[in-house]
Amino acid sequence: MSISDAKVLSTVPLLDDEARWINLVKITYQDPKGASRTWESAERRTRPKDGEIDGVGIVAILNNPTTGRKELLLQRQYRPPVDCVTIEVPAGLVDADETAEQAAVRELREETGYVGVVTETSPIMYNDPGFCNTNLRMVHVSIDMSLPENRDPRPQLEDGEFIDVFTVPLDNLWEECKRLERDGCAIDARVGTIAEGILLAQQLKL
Amino acid sequence: MSISDAKVLSTVPLLDDEARWINLVKITYQDPKGASRTWESAERRTRPKDGEIDGVGIVAILNNPTTGRKELLLQRQYRPPVDCVTIEVPAGLVDADETAEQAAVRELREETGYVGVVTETSPIMYNDPGFCNTNLRMVHVSIDMSLPENRDPRPQLEDGEFIDVFTVPLDNLWEECKRLERDGCAIDARVGTIAEGILLAQQLKL
Repeated sequence: MSISDAKVLSTVPLLDDEARWINLVKITYQDPKGASRTWESAERRTRPKDGEIDGVGIVAILNNPTTGRKELLLQRQYRPPVDCVTIEVPAGLVDADETAEQAAVRELREETGYVGVVTETSPIMYNDPGFCNTNLRMVHVSIDMSLPENRDPRPQLEDGEFIDVFTVPLDNLWEECKRLERDGCAIDARVGTIAEGILLAQQLKL
Repeated sequence: MSISDAKVLSTVPLLDDEARWINLVKITYQDPKGASRTWESAERRTRPKDGEIDGVGIVAILNNPTTGRKELLLQRQYRPPVDCVTIEVPAGLVDADETAEQAAVRELREETGYVGVVTETSPIMYNDPGFCNTNLRMVHVSIDMSLPENRDPRPQLEDGEFIDVFTVPLDNLWEECKRLERDGCAIDARVGTIAEGILLAQQLKL
């Protein structure tokens, strides 16, 4: 069997008292004119106490010093919420007392086996702020492919994690996203939106 | 009063039978090895029946034919789920029987008053596919600032919508995001990730 054999068997309403990972809240807020209004929101239950982010996304770039090629590390993974194999950057939830950069280096090693160096950390980004409070920082990691530790990378996946790692040329990411969608994959917003930014920079000569 | 005067007054658990906009589900799925597992997911209740997307995000670029400047249209908006003023691209939910492009042109006119031409439509992108099924297409819209209809744009906001429209230079979006975060705003993932793509293209000469 392979990742594409995974599928939803059934979906039922989830009651608040049996939910372990996520929950819904009703927010009463004062609008900009001083009126009281309500809003519905979804949340993760896993954010560390006093933590500012749920997780990190990792823009891991494989650098080949000989050829000069820049490849982006991506993952194929079955995701029950969308009942599809998604194309995502490596990512993970942040542990308590862990910085975004520490989480990124750890998750990259666990999920892909690669060892890299952090080059950039993004502002906190909100995934869908009209719908939920989930957020992350994006961490850019440079992977030197000439180093011995990156010659034979071995992921250490947890029970229940099934991840295929692959790479695409960074300068053609927009077309790669369109091709992967035609092949039946669901494009994660981080992958598709980085591709948009690269496309805009190329088209508009930014 | 202004947008920054809005604030959360109280937050309580939301029960499934009183939720109108969103809901939680428990999914039973077959994993890639054939084992049965469960997953928790959040959903919007507003996706059109048989519709493929919840909404659209709009990359609206103001083109000044005289100066050649490219500015990105952004919005400041108070968002109860994050209890903060967010920086977002114009966006909206798709009506039944409406294409992504039609929704983008309509929402852009309603939220900002600008009239533009669609230049690109993205693959479907999933906002947070380990947590929820919400998705969108990004639609790129070019706004010709020399046209009379774009000289005095007037938004037509719904009751309860409070949106400030502003622009930033597209080639410096990453630094603008960092500045806006320092000023106390929350950066939406679309804005921050487009900035990342532009930064990568500039740094790596893609």
